Amino acid sequence: MRAVLIDLARARAIVDRALAHARSNDFPPMTVAVFDTAARLVAFAGEDGSSLLRERIARGKAHGALNMGVGSRALAARAASDPDFVNALVALAEGNLVPVPGGVLIRDENGDLIGAVGVSGHLPDDDEACAIHAITGCGLRADPGT
Amino acid sequence: MRAVLIDLARARAIVDRALAHARSNDFPPMTVAVFDTAARLVAFAGEDGSSLLRERIARGKAHGALNMGVGSRALAARAASDPDFVNALVALAEGNLVPVPGGVLIRDENGDLIGAVGVSGHLPDDDEACAIHAITGCGLRADPGT
Amino acid sequence: MRAVLIDLARARAIVDRALAHARSNDFPPMTVAVFDTAARLVAFAGEDGSSLLRERIARGKAHGALNMGVGSRALAARAASDPDFVNALVALAEGNLVPVPGGVLIRDENGDLIGAVGVSGHLPDDDEACAIHAITGCGLRADPGT
Amino acid sequence: MRAVLIDLARARAIVDRALAHARSNDFPPMTVAVFDTAARLVAFAGEDGSSLLRERIARGKAHGALNMGVGSRALAARAASDPDFVNALVALAEGNLVPVPGGVLIRDENGDLIGAVGVSGHLPDDDEACAIHAITGCGLRADPGT
Repeated sequence: MRAVLIDLARARAIVDRALAHARSNDFPPMTVAVFDTAARLVAFAGEDGSSLLRERIARGKAHGALNMGVGSRALAARAASDPDFVNALVALAEGNLVPVPGGVLIRDENGDLIGAVGVSGHLPDDDEACAIHAITGCGLRADPGT
Repeated sequence: MRAVLIDLARARAIVDRALAHARSNDFPPMTVAVFDTAARLVAFAGEDGSSLLRERIARGKAHGALNMGVGSRALAARAASDPDFVNALVALAEGNLVPVPGGVLIRDENGDLIGAVGVSGHLPDDDEACAIHAITGCGLRADPGT
Repeated sequence: MRAVLIDLARARAIVDRALAHARSNDFPPMTVAVFDTAARLVAFAGEDGSSLLRERIARGKAHGALNMGVGSRALAARAASDPDFVNALVALAEGNLVPVPGGVLIRDENGDLIGAVGVSGHLPDDDEACAIHAITGCGLRADPGT
Repeated sequence: MRAVLIDLARARAIVDRALAHARSNDFPPMTVAVFDTAARLVAFAGEDGSSLLRERIARGKAHGALNMGVGSRALAARAASDPDFVNALVALAEGNLVPVPGGVLIRDENGDLIGAVGVSGHLPDDDEACAIHAITGCGLRADPGT
């Protein structure tokens, strides 16, 4: 089975674009984490003043998306309709599944999964907007879940 | 006290039949795990493209069934009526209790418990259907919980 | 970055060949686990009579090889020369790094890493022989570490 | 009490310089993590082909340095002279203390602690050389431990 993994150059470009989006919108300090499909952290930046749990939240959004194969917006919807199941998933994943928007799957030009980005720092919709803006700005496809 | 444990040959036959059911119904990538009554993993298969947490979910369904002595459908019903109790069980089991259908107890011709199978990959009812189809196709009794 | 992941068909063939090697040599009950490069369990079999920790040992050998990018024989050598470092790695990996032979990297025809197999049940050299026999019998390259 | 925390701009500069040193010396794939004095991850990069545990090792070197207030080379020396104590520290830190060179404290112009960098991918001395080169190249002081 062939797979494509996001490389460091593209992962760093996603981080840069996500932070640029946050700065141009005057968001609070933002944390951005990019993972490959093995949930291996590839690139990360935490802006000055980020609170202590931000890394874990950004990681949990992205890792959760990879854990389940859907963007974290879909996990938020599932949590609303079936909270016990999602609570069980959170326990299984030892927290590496945060069911709010902002964990966005990264797909290449062919639609193949190559990684995920997690963003935390502001409102979930704003966090997700940073991720989508960054992914599409790099010529890749953003899959935030529905 | 005598106990019968599912053997490797029958565990692998259950995996094969569960996957065959999934393929004949065009389900997404499916993960199937068969445990004996000591919660020892006996046979396992994860189809190509399975997301990262699927093993843990399949395990949590089957292991949860063995942990409580009922199929995971019964745990889903209990979670609906008494969520705090089931959340406490999830914590006690360190996640190895996923209260949704798809964790099915395996009983022999005499009704004695010999193991459990957990299936994850599609909707809970479909996951459970793979498990029941596989167990009964091997001449054993499926106990999915009520 | 392109990657190849071992698929279910080849993973199951490796399990079958490892068990066949064990049976033809009259080894004790053997446990075999095949992982892809994301450390996702793909195929598994535990022979009748396997003791309770065998899954975790087989997993720890293979996962440890993937964690460090070398076969577990190399981790055994490192443990002999630098036990404190390897103890720290074991803690970091929460046990998913067992520094004895029997965790063998699987490489394809081009030498690219596609997964790992872990075997446990008999002496480490015998466990490793099952893994190497199985991998090479499938036309792949075994990298046990040196 | 005043404290200075490394900021994102300098943390990213350290990552860049550490990777540049690794590339100019043709090291294997390298992982670099920079933390502030609260052990908050600030910047991170994992080169293509890094094995699965590299993030945790780089983190454990840097985090261990911050945990004990000395560069990880000093923890390696302590492990050699008093392995039981260091093993106990590793357990206390839940693995976040890797007693080998490559976790280097970052001090500012006044000698005040502002963070730590952890590097993993090659031999410990080479990993540490990347860290020292990067810190001093940014006009800061590297404290690797003795």
